[in-house]
Amino acid sequence: MSEYKSKLLKPSNPRGTRDFSPAEMMRRNHIFDTCKAAFQKHGYLPIETPSLENHETLTGKYGGEGDKLIFNVLNSGDYLSKVPEGTDKEDSRALTKSISDKALRYDLTVPFARYVVQHLNEITFPFKRFQIQPVWRADRPAKGRYREFYQCDIDVIGSKSLLNEVELLLIINEVFSGLGLEHISISINNRKILAGVAESCGIQDQFVDMVTALDKWDKIGEEGVAEELRKREISEEAISNILAYASTSNPDKLGELLGVTQADKGVEELKEVIGHLGNLNISNVNYDPTLARGIDYYTGIIIEVRVDDFPGSLCAGGRYDDLTGLFGLKDVSGVGVSFGADRIYDVMEEQGVFPADISTTTQLMLANFGEAEAAYGLGLVTRLREAGVHAELYPDTAKMKKQMAYADAKSIKYVGLIGSDEMAAGKITLKNMATGDQESVTEEELINVLNT
Amino acid sequence: MSEYKSKLLKPSNPRGTRDFSPAEMMRRNHIFDTCKAAFQKHGYLPIETPSLENHETLTGKYGGEGDKLIFNVLNSGDYLSKVPEGTDKEDSRALTKSISDKALRYDLTVPFARYVVQHLNEITFPFKRFQIQPVWRADRPAKGRYREFYQCDIDVIGSKSLLNEVELLLIINEVFSGLGLEHISISINNRKILAGVAESCGIQDQFVDMVTALDKWDKIGEEGVAEELRKREISEEAISNILAYASTSNPDKLGELLGVTQADKGVEELKEVIGHLGNLNISNVNYDPTLARGIDYYTGIIIEVRVDDFPGSLCAGGRYDDLTGLFGLKDVSGVGVSFGADRIYDVMEEQGVFPADISTTTQLMLANFGEAEAAYGLGLVTRLREAGVHAELYPDTAKMKKQMAYADAKSIKYVGLIGSDEMAAGKITLKNMATGDQESVTEEELINVLNT
Repeated sequence: MSEYKSKLLKPSNPRGTRDFSPAEMMRRNHIFDTCKAAFQKHGYLPIETPSLENHETLTGKYGGEGDKLIFNVLNSGDYLSKVPEGTDKEDSRALTKSISDKALRYDLTVPFARYVVQHLNEITFPFKRFQIQPVWRADRPAKGRYREFYQCDIDVIGSKSLLNEVELLLIINEVFSGLGLEHISISINNRKILAGVAESCGIQDQFVDMVTALDKWDKIGEEGVAEELRKREISEEAISNILAYASTSNPDKLGELLGVTQADKGVEELKEVIGHLGNLNISNVNYDPTLARGIDYYTGIIIEVRVDDFPGSLCAGGRYDDLTGLFGLKDVSGVGVSFGADRIYDVMEEQGVFPADISTTTQLMLANFGEAEAAYGLGLVTRLREAGVHAELYPDTAKMKKQMAYADAKSIKYVGLIGSDEMAAGKITLKNMATGDQESVTEEELINVLNT
Repeated sequence: MSEYKSKLLKPSNPRGTRDFSPAEMMRRNHIFDTCKAAFQKHGYLPIETPSLENHETLTGKYGGEGDKLIFNVLNSGDYLSKVPEGTDKEDSRALTKSISDKALRYDLTVPFARYVVQHLNEITFPFKRFQIQPVWRADRPAKGRYREFYQCDIDVIGSKSLLNEVELLLIINEVFSGLGLEHISISINNRKILAGVAESCGIQDQFVDMVTALDKWDKIGEEGVAEELRKREISEEAISNILAYASTSNPDKLGELLGVTQADKGVEELKEVIGHLGNLNISNVNYDPTLARGIDYYTGIIIEVRVDDFPGSLCAGGRYDDLTGLFGLKDVSGVGVSFGADRIYDVMEEQGVFPADISTTTQLMLANFGEAEAAYGLGLVTRLREAGVHAELYPDTAKMKKQMAYADAKSIKYVGLIGSDEMAAGKITLKNMATGDQESVTEEELINVLNT
């Protein structure tokens, strides 16, 4: 079809969105399948929620900046005729409320909270669920930042036990080792300790400022964090206390340092989790006092997974005590993490750990030498498939070079050749595409070769 | 959590959309997995396209009625400030063009055509692809009609060979027998024959009217179709010819009846496909002269799958000769079918053919008798998972009744009990939840029981 290529005015997909070709799909599915297998092995169950949510479900849940990034969907039909009298039709924000009832989901967390409250009568708690679906954000597109991307979330809700945190850390290890990413580092901290630090410094009302500054430690270091705190008008004494805290890598020393009960509870929780992990000989989970996870609904243990030399986290999450409170259901504790499929994909590409045979789906292509041979071949590929072999018959009687190029492009390992001689002898000439070797085999021998 | 239930004002999902609970998800995944396995066995490769498409990609592709059902997405930020001078801000349709650049995809076919043209240089033809993604339509919600639903499409593009039609029919049989729906009927026809009928009646310019009327044969019968044709001002002579055609179930007799070349070609194609199926001993594919498939891009063989006593088709499609022509790439023939996952789900429910064990994901739950027992149990479930067992430890030290109710709700087959006696003896008391039987087993014996 090369003759057409030059004449075309190419159509395009919207900025910040992506088409996924077969090779990308198979790699992405490898990531999702590895996640799902680990989730299900630990008793987590799948749910899905609609892409569209009512505005009242989403609005006010992501802060002012988040709200601006929500994609609103226009009401259908003559939507302007339903705008109430008195609406300022020159004010985008005012008009949106009257012409859009629904929006695309911004994350999986808020829809999950809605789901739990709405389906309370059907759910047996503790409820362990996973959810792998796209989300949409009207962010400025940039390298690695998309307007449509998948989230891969796992949460357990309705149980306060720290065994859930331990289980999530086990799942994280299972997923990353299943993906061949062995050298990850898992950091944990506890928001109760951070709250204790703020309390001991007398800056409870600037908790968010403190957390936001600490979160940048990896990027801007101790001096940078101090500067950030100064900008937010935190006293030099408090800053010096915060920096002393942030340099204490042994959680046992925190009690002494802070001397506040809230922190004690946080340290106790950390130690319980670390104790369980020790019993299981897991050594890649480390306490990081600078880990803060800016998002403000976390209230207990927080978790983050990174790999060296790669910016950003590959997986993160923590415990939240009042997520369903957004929808009127109070005091239901939950804990969960979210796997960043796009980042994981990029790291796996960079480290070259995608399995080599991941893009091979067809095991044998039968070449097409003409009408009679194809009719004969159709029976053969049908029997091969019944024997579990992934096989295809090239549909057209094209030049052999073209047929072979097709098999090459699809990384098909074997090509079967059946001409009149083979038909007469009831044999198949089998070509190994990697070595170029050819041998004459019976149908039974062929199935044996392909099924081993 | 029952104490909260009465106090809640329930949040809700938008009308025409659905939440999928774990039980539904597992059934839906069973359908999608069965489809995918059959597709991949025949060499089809997955792609995905974004949910959002630019308006120019979608507009004008679905006819006037279809266009009205497209969900438009509002531009972000102060979108009104970018409305060009002179736009009628009281006219919904005019305003939409200025405040919405993007829309949610309406089907998978048009995005696929865009994909092929946009990625022409990366694709090796014939391109066999499948795509399973949601689509959105601003239809009036009704029983079985949703505003967000999945399509499951499979197409081969860039090959005119009828072996592709044969392969699609094989895939249809493999999917439905894989799902346990054995008594399907597959109808085929050829739009070339329908075009020939119109030609022989001298009503080429009323082809769409004829096809639309014929399409209702199943619902309104011969008399109803005649009435429909009369309403569309087709002559009595033409109507009588159309009805004679529609009653001829042997395609061999059509040549004589119609005597037009276009129909001859259509009959020849049908016979070639039916001949291949005969060689493969496939007997559930039947010629149906009244099958017409209203959508107007089909140009060759058309296919439809039904089950008795269930309205509508479970799978349908056909050959189209100019789909990519929408985006400037002419003369690329393709053929494909779409599986209706929602209808297939409903039929499977009705016929009770979903496998009974489909909702069992956890094989063993270990009960939680307290801190020490749980710490001990955590090691056990971790080793069980390493041995491939789906296992979970109940996270809280709750009443045994509550823990058992949890295992029941999740259809967990075995519950392991480890108290101080079991810890001392290094044994597990294993309870079979179906029979109530309990036995004392070693860890090795436990793994054997669970892995068989």
